[in-house]
Amino acid sequence: MNDPVFFTRLVRSLPTTVPFVGPETLARRSGRAFKVRLGANESAFGVSPKAQEAMRETIKRVSWYNDPDNYEIRAAVAAFHGMPFENVGIGSGIDDLLGLVVRIFMEQGETAVTSLGAYPTFNYHVTGFGGSLHFVPYRDDRNDLEALADAAAETGARLVYLSNPDNPAGTWHVSRDLEAFVDRLPEGCILILDEAYVEFATDEAVLPLDPVDPRVIRMRTFSKVHGMAGARIGYAIAAAEIVNAFEKVRHHFGVNRIAQAGALASLGDPDFVARVVEAVAEGRREYEALGRELGLPTLPSGTNFVSFDAGDADRAEWMVGTLLERGAFVRKPGAPPLDRCFRVTVGTAPEREAFAEILREVVEIEES
Amino acid sequence: MNDPVFFTRLVRSLPTTVPFVGPETLARRSGRAFKVRLGANESAFGVSPKAQEAMRETIKRVSWYNDPDNYEIRAAVAAFHGMPFENVGIGSGIDDLLGLVVRIFMEQGETAVTSLGAYPTFNYHVTGFGGSLHFVPYRDDRNDLEALADAAAETGARLVYLSNPDNPAGTWHVSRDLEAFVDRLPEGCILILDEAYVEFATDEAVLPLDPVDPRVIRMRTFSKVHGMAGARIGYAIAAAEIVNAFEKVRHHFGVNRIAQAGALASLGDPDFVARVVEAVAEGRREYEALGRELGLPTLPSGTNFVSFDAGDADRAEWMVGTLLERGAFVRKPGAPPLDRCFRVTVGTAPEREAFAEILREVVEIEES
Repeated sequence: MNDPVFFTRLVRSLPTTVPFVGPETLARRSGRAFKVRLGANESAFGVSPKAQEAMRETIKRVSWYNDPDNYEIRAAVAAFHGMPFENVGIGSGIDDLLGLVVRIFMEQGETAVTSLGAYPTFNYHVTGFGGSLHFVPYRDDRNDLEALADAAAETGARLVYLSNPDNPAGTWHVSRDLEAFVDRLPEGCILILDEAYVEFATDEAVLPLDPVDPRVIRMRTFSKVHGMAGARIGYAIAAAEIVNAFEKVRHHFGVNRIAQAGALASLGDPDFVARVVEAVAEGRREYEALGRELGLPTLPSGTNFVSFDAGDADRAEWMVGTLLERGAFVRKPGAPPLDRCFRVTVGTAPEREAFAEILREVVEIEES
Repeated sequence: MNDPVFFTRLVRSLPTTVPFVGPETLARRSGRAFKVRLGANESAFGVSPKAQEAMRETIKRVSWYNDPDNYEIRAAVAAFHGMPFENVGIGSGIDDLLGLVVRIFMEQGETAVTSLGAYPTFNYHVTGFGGSLHFVPYRDDRNDLEALADAAAETGARLVYLSNPDNPAGTWHVSRDLEAFVDRLPEGCILILDEAYVEFATDEAVLPLDPVDPRVIRMRTFSKVHGMAGARIGYAIAAAEIVNAFEKVRHHFGVNRIAQAGALASLGDPDFVARVVEAVAEGRREYEALGRELGLPTLPSGTNFVSFDAGDADRAEWMVGTLLERGAFVRKPGAPPLDRCFRVTVGTAPEREAFAEILREVVEIEES
């Protein structure tokens, strides 16, 4: 058992890691509960009452397995977007779908391109399946599309990852620039377009969904605007043969019954979604005002969070640590140039007030 | 996109498959709902009221991500079994955990040994990660421990899969025979002991849990006796370094928040579990009597289902098809010698009555 040759070569080479340390773990370590939980871009505006009701009803039948075909929610997502059933694949969140895509496309030793400091779970899956990562720095606090396309060509990348609007920056590229980017990708290279936050963005930030571009895998989620992060359900929109390849390797019973029912109901409650989008826009404006007040400029955001610019990485790190100590759970990007920022989820009005109070205290401590 | 060289070599070699066709899909295909759903060994006795309450409460906070460390339920499972935290790994059901184990142990081309006709999802994962399967026929309707151990030695297997009590037979081996079996396994070969049904079995069918045998990975689930199949949560009990290896590749946010809360509450409701075990035992006895009445002998069962022996595979297949047509969802094993049987989950008293009525009709049709 102590023989290091026990596991596969690849697994022996991997670190033991958690892409994100959860707030529960941070709270356990510190022995203190958080006053405001604004570090994971969870929706502060809850779940559609229709979805809550559907989930409560489903609990009564949770002794039945979930439908492994995810048929109803898959058909509903397809209808919602006005596209064929076979172009929609359901997974237990974008994290699950990212793992599937890496697994079906990347041989060990092949390369994926992503921005330096972008979504760590994509990197986790690439490394976990034996791929290599090539990182491209952000430029002007946005994904550097030209450099990403150049890197894809130079490295012969199988996959390029891009989130638009971006996490952790919050910034975005407009549709025509995304189209030009896709056209510049080398043949055989697939773009994973992570659109977890797309509902919070303006229409100009959204590539047309129809027709499905075979070079692009879109990923969307019920974790953000739908407020169902803990339920674990998301979907990919992609060429039929890509969705079909998921069938070869996916965890068929992976999307639980309650999530399927809740997502179906939430998709049928567009008024709720519209109210969340509006509430988030209001909260963003409030954060921008707070940033101006405290000399912490904010980055433009097409998401449900705002990045505050602390000027340099040391100051940002100190501020995040001090915020955590005082009960505000927020996170910060780990890599330059964004590591000079800290990222705050748009909370409810009382949460924003509580956060503003703590942030003002932190700035006062610094000045004293 | 039509280039077959698009996906990895392994993925190109895989079939598009679903290890189990769900009852929802069967019902959609036939255009009829089932009267009784007794084909997936789901618990007919529901979910602990405490677990239901915990899940309902959690819906209110489902906009928060699940704890990626599964800390509370992991600690509770460890305490429940009186063993160290580091020996418990949580997954979104045994299916998820089987995938993890195959992934961390098996290089492409290596071999796993399992009984012919045993759990198809294990086979799915082995094939999905490029492993080879070596099948050992059942003997006297039980897993053939001697032949499995011999096959493991002959093939240099990395993994052997065994469910005890067995699915789909329902039969079991006693603890001392399992111990002898583990001792016969070749060095470096790990036994996956799937104990999904273990709560329904007598104590003699259960290997001691403590101390943890580094050669054995035990798998247990909240899908069966706890009645939470649709919630997706199970656990592995294994050497700490095996559980630690899960951390390198697992889908950290894969176990949803509602399942974690429900499992925690159900684990704290042993009276409920005891009542389910008793109700299942009563139902098994009723099925045995039904089998005697209709000339369909039943196999001994340490599970929540009973295998009825139709004598030969053609007859069993006809009976399952006719049962399905008449609204009773049951399944049958696909490989000899068990393919002469069909497998019926223990339902509630009214479900058993409805099933008995349909089965009597089927026997009458056959005789007429």
